[in-house]
Amino acid sequence: MAEYILPLERLIEQFRRLPGIGQKTAVRLAFSLLDYTADEAKAFADAIIGAKEQIHSCKICHNIADGDICQVCADERRDRSTICVVEDARAVLSLERVREYNGVYHVLGGVISPMSGIGPDKLNIASLLSRLDGSVREVIIATNPTVEGEATAMYLTKKIKALGVGVSRLAYGIPVGSDLEYADEVTLMRALEGRRSM
Amino acid sequence: MAEYILPLERLIEQFRRLPGIGQKTAVRLAFSLLDYTADEAKAFADAIIGAKEQIHSCKICHNIADGDICQVCADERRDRSTICVVEDARAVLSLERVREYNGVYHVLGGVISPMSGIGPDKLNIASLLSRLDGSVREVIIATNPTVEGEATAMYLTKKIKALGVGVSRLAYGIPVGSDLEYADEVTLMRALEGRRSM
Repeated sequence: MAEYILPLERLIEQFRRLPGIGQKTAVRLAFSLLDYTADEAKAFADAIIGAKEQIHSCKICHNIADGDICQVCADERRDRSTICVVEDARAVLSLERVREYNGVYHVLGGVISPMSGIGPDKLNIASLLSRLDGSVREVIIATNPTVEGEATAMYLTKKIKALGVGVSRLAYGIPVGSDLEYADEVTLMRALEGRRSM
Repeated sequence: MAEYILPLERLIEQFRRLPGIGQKTAVRLAFSLLDYTADEAKAFADAIIGAKEQIHSCKICHNIADGDICQVCADERRDRSTICVVEDARAVLSLERVREYNGVYHVLGGVISPMSGIGPDKLNIASLLSRLDGSVREVIIATNPTVEGEATAMYLTKKIKALGVGVSRLAYGIPVGSDLEYADEVTLMRALEGRRSM
């Protein structure tokens, strides 16, 4: 017989596409779904479709949002004079978890990476600069402490300073070479407190 | 802001339910889906629904099937006088991969486990015994070498022998390619007991 019947093969293939999921794990996950009731399977499928249909990019900061603007931008208590620039929406969640930062965000959607053909024009940089209309006092750059993250921070610093807005960078409390998502809350808090003007 | 917006939270929850997927992995998988196009997300959702709708239990052996009977039972070249009894459909796939066995299968759907309230009546045992109508020469019991798998094998052996059909059990021994040093005592004892003259 063929290795897997077609509907199973399709499901395995879908799991296989996910990051960090190899063939064996994909097979295990696919088989576990066969034990789901029809309702449970439908709930899973609906969650996937729902996430895609209902999650948008915030019109102001490009964070993930279930409406036109994200929960941070919609929150009237947030301090709009400080913008924290991050690579992606996951970094926003990591920073929110600290409960220390009260400003707003700007999600770049990546970092400048000439090797991968990602120039400044492919990132949400123009929209960031257009937000610096005089009401913003400080931009905190919180790109990841990687080579590309640093290069992006340097690029942004130059652009933002030219507009007369203060720029700071998260302190090196974050272990170099790692990812914001995996930093613990205390480390992230120290990094926020120890930010230095650039 | 709340930890995650609702559609994302729902998706994370669904990934979290899968075996071996913890909170961090679930979040990573959910975020990776946000990068899918609408078509890709639909393909994933369809694969889940499709697997549930199109995969049935074989009417003869309870293996997974995309029709009424599975690919093994449908294959005319298979030897119907030998039935290999396994716990689940994944074991069928493991054995098929060997390309050595030419008989048919019977999937029990689990093992006898009084601790979990699973008695012989909850397994596909009646349908196995009803297949032993004189045309079957041998039943190979290939339940897993666990306490429950052994108990189930003992139970089946008694029932099948009573019908005058030959019963055998997969050999125990040292896995090929491993080292005696790392084999546990019970495995070594079984390997000694099962030694074959050369």
